Amino acid sequence: MPIGEEKNGTCDRSIYVNNPHLESMKEDILYHFNLGTSTHDLPAMFGDVKFVCVGGSPWRMKSFTEYIAKELGLSEPNADYPNICAGTDRYAMYKVGPVLFVSHGMGIPSIAIMLHELIKLLYHARCTDVTVVRIGTSGGIGLKPGTVVVTKQSVDSVFQPRFEQIILGKLVVRSTELDGELAEELLQCGKDLAEFETVIGNTMCTLDFYEGQARLDGAFCSYSEEDKQNYLAEAYAAGVRNIEMESSVFAAMCKLSNLRALLDRLKGDQLTSSHDVLNNYQQRPQVLVGHYIKKKLNASKKN
Amino acid sequence: MPIGEEKNGTCDRSIYVNNPHLESMKEDILYHFNLGTSTHDLPAMFGDVKFVCVGGSPWRMKSFTEYIAKELGLSEPNADYPNICAGTDRYAMYKVGPVLFVSHGMGIPSIAIMLHELIKLLYHARCTDVTVVRIGTSGGIGLKPGTVVVTKQSVDSVFQPRFEQIILGKLVVRSTELDGELAEELLQCGKDLAEFETVIGNTMCTLDFYEGQARLDGAFCSYSEEDKQNYLAEAYAAGVRNIEMESSVFAAMCKLSNLRALLDRLKGDQLTSSHDVLNNYQQRPQVLVGHYIKKKLNASKKN
Repeated sequence: MPIGEEKNGTCDRSIYVNNPHLESMKEDILYHFNLGTSTHDLPAMFGDVKFVCVGGSPWRMKSFTEYIAKELGLSEPNADYPNICAGTDRYAMYKVGPVLFVSHGMGIPSIAIMLHELIKLLYHARCTDVTVVRIGTSGGIGLKPGTVVVTKQSVDSVFQPRFEQIILGKLVVRSTELDGELAEELLQCGKDLAEFETVIGNTMCTLDFYEGQARLDGAFCSYSEEDKQNYLAEAYAAGVRNIEMESSVFAAMCKLSNLRALLDRLKGDQLTSSHDVLNNYQQRPQVLVGHYIKKKLNASKKN
Repeated sequence: MPIGEEKNGTCDRSIYVNNPHLESMKEDILYHFNLGTSTHDLPAMFGDVKFVCVGGSPWRMKSFTEYIAKELGLSEPNADYPNICAGTDRYAMYKVGPVLFVSHGMGIPSIAIMLHELIKLLYHARCTDVTVVRIGTSGGIGLKPGTVVVTKQSVDSVFQPRFEQIILGKLVVRSTELDGELAEELLQCGKDLAEFETVIGNTMCTLDFYEGQARLDGAFCSYSEEDKQNYLAEAYAAGVRNIEMESSVFAAMCKLSNLRALLDRLKGDQLTSSHDVLNNYQQRPQVLVGHYIKKKLNASKKN
């Protein structure tokens, strides 16, 4: 059910929803955003969106908003960016020009609720050619701390590129393939900048932070240091360079809805690095994505 | 690895962690709480905790804190309850006397991270006889809106009382059995209060809010209204009375760590009820749990 729009004689890449029931609904309430089709003019509010940046923490999304506003020359002195989802504490949302920022909390279920409502929001707002970028920190495997990892494929705990969704009690397997061209473009941005190491690799997505990622410091642990190292070595051999908790459903849902999806994670070593070092690390994916967005917007202005 | 404490000649119910690696760690950083064993005196801060109330939203946890403070006669005029996890935006934490309140976000992975760190916090603080109660709203099946459901068993999408945990890429199945005696006690509190309907039933826990709970209004939907009704009827026949997204791992982890666990959810119909009605509904689990905590604390004073 895409809204195919003709512009300059070419058909834009439209946002797909795949739900015949939406047509017959009098209104669509995006409950966890505290937005809706009869209470808000979604095309007016969001129709110009071309990039959506998502990340776990609301605080980090706000500071990323301020950074991008400055980078794009859209910041005003003492500007405060209001939270568009102010009426709820589930997610936070900010907007600067054509760039939307949304927090998604931690884990697959939390980001999936946000993505369902984001996809419907972009659809109702009749957005086209939207690129969604997820940024954040992650545990790295075999990389120097501070390396930025651009995800080639999101894989599960046995290193397969798939996302398992349960629908009406039945298992449905979805592909987690990402846009390879985008990943190469982002890698190229990393080379242009030459400020820090950027690599392409597979990202393992888990449902659990402690036992699911072979950590030894959870409330429960039934394996040895050696078991952990063996598992991480297997992951490395399968091309995994970092581990996090949202990439699989992000890749699967963006693919289903015709959104260009990009994952750009930082390998941080939170326990041994100083606060200054960590702060510098956390800027890196932002710098890279900021450079990428600027480049794309400048290119589209020239066309 | 329980800390067995002798008090008044009887051995208290201690908090178990089950991780031999913790013993050899110089410090334990509870990263997502922004607390740690070398930066905070956890026994002094939390040693008296007997009840932990958890729920998804930080705002609702704060208002529940204020309500319980008043109920227990511990509130002071114009008292503001500081967020103990103020240095992070992952979770919010408040404390009033022996009652701790923690938010956990949405979904199994998000509450699991919180529970790993909560269990270690209670362990490091040498707490004993702790009851953990999860409150919140949920979708109901075959119940009047506003009914409070006390969970007998947490079941998965095919109605089995189990939680599947992946450890080093391998499936481990954990029991989600809850404390039946506690559920009966809470049901009794509902009868004492006689203010609203309280029932005991099974709670279905899903990884997804839209397709996972047979909703027709997500970005994707591949089934009909009839398929949905059939699935919910099957769930009802299996004893399911409400659906939410955190109960299975809550039940499994509390069981593994010797915590008394209680789930108390409200069946709300968020789209058709007015705000006043909804606000009244959302108070109900709080009123019930407040009554229960008061009763237990009074009983322990008499002994």
